[in-house]
Amino acid sequence: MNESPGVADLLGVLAYAELSAFTRMTEDAAHLAPSLADRAALSELAVAEYAHFRLLRDRLTELGVDPEQAMRPFAEALDAWHTQTRPADWLQALVKAYVGVGIALDFYREAARRLEPSIAKLVDEVLADEGRAGFAVERVRAGVAADPVASGRLALWARRLVGEALSQGQRVAAARPELAGLLVRSGDDDQAEISRLFAALTEEHGKRMAALGL
Amino acid sequence: MNESPGVADLLGVLAYAELSAFTRMTEDAAHLAPSLADRAALSELAVAEYAHFRLLRDRLTELGVDPEQAMRPFAEALDAWHTQTRPADWLQALVKAYVGVGIALDFYREAARRLEPSIAKLVDEVLADEGRAGFAVERVRAGVAADPVASGRLALWARRLVGEALSQGQRVAAARPELAGLLVRSGDDDQAEISRLFAALTEEHGKRMAALGL
Repeated sequence: MNESPGVADLLGVLAYAELSAFTRMTEDAAHLAPSLADRAALSELAVAEYAHFRLLRDRLTELGVDPEQAMRPFAEALDAWHTQTRPADWLQALVKAYVGVGIALDFYREAARRLEPSIAKLVDEVLADEGRAGFAVERVRAGVAADPVASGRLALWARRLVGEALSQGQRVAAARPELAGLLVRSGDDDQAEISRLFAALTEEHGKRMAALGL
Repeated sequence: MNESPGVADLLGVLAYAELSAFTRMTEDAAHLAPSLADRAALSELAVAEYAHFRLLRDRLTELGVDPEQAMRPFAEALDAWHTQTRPADWLQALVKAYVGVGIALDFYREAARRLEPSIAKLVDEVLADEGRAGFAVERVRAGVAADPVASGRLALWARRLVGEALSQGQRVAAARPELAGLLVRSGDDDQAEISRLFAALTEEHGKRMAALGL
């Protein structure tokens, strides 16, 4: 078991990310979905986030870490991200759900690169759900096809989601150097490793935007 | 398979009740829970409601009924109930979750009395989760023990929850006579059956209040 001091931070930030994604998607589903079927579809995605939260919380407990204490330091930054990226309509909500879930999965992958086998099983369980966001991709593509003007607007929206995430991420990294160290730990060339991390995140984000047709 | 015209109404109203309970409990958890552990506990209950919703929606689909159309007629009354019973604090949220889930379970039981075996299996699956609300009972009892003044205030709150539910229920019964007929159908003595139904609901509510220490 990897007992690096950053591990509780990593599981804690992911756990709160899942819990807050669950809450916000549920709210967006209730307030923005154009039909009850759409509301159910986004709620389904929210419930899957809750299941991820449960896995992470239980892993923290197994490690002897109080989940509350592990999550608490990250609540403000993640809540701030949600407040600054409140979707104005249904397509924005879907893009946010897809991009947000995608960024979380990228972090699981980065964590898995460094913490296996301690966290590898957890990552497998989380990634197994990945197909679930497919409905968001379908609906956004259909929405953009029906209203081509929406495309540029949604591309800007996605850029804002990522920009605000990076801004909050920098705040967190400055406040929690052990967590930052865990994600870029490479032995002797930190700067190259940071560049690699950003390149990987940017590449995955680009793939998601292409999948959305944006 | 019982194909009474009220069956789609019954499954539809229960499905929307579960979907809206899922949403509102999730929101209450996020906005009122005093700790992340409490937020997770009420979210857990919300997710169980979503699982019930899924069962009911799938049953509607199996019956060849569009879930959207089956739920739609009841959305306004259930949303109005939630708007009129917005909890002001954490203990009110817990009482609402417990009393609300309880009322929904009472309706499943009433439905099972009349629709078996068509709906009996569904009811079994839903009732199997019943122990989940136990955490709400524990927290409310502890809250009342710590602050005896809260007891009278919460008893009034529970009375208001039921009063508003009866008021919305009467609106729905007037607008959907087939649904009302299904719940009180007895052959030759409707009035006695209505009295029995209300007596059963009141008795179960009384048991829940006693469990809460109110």
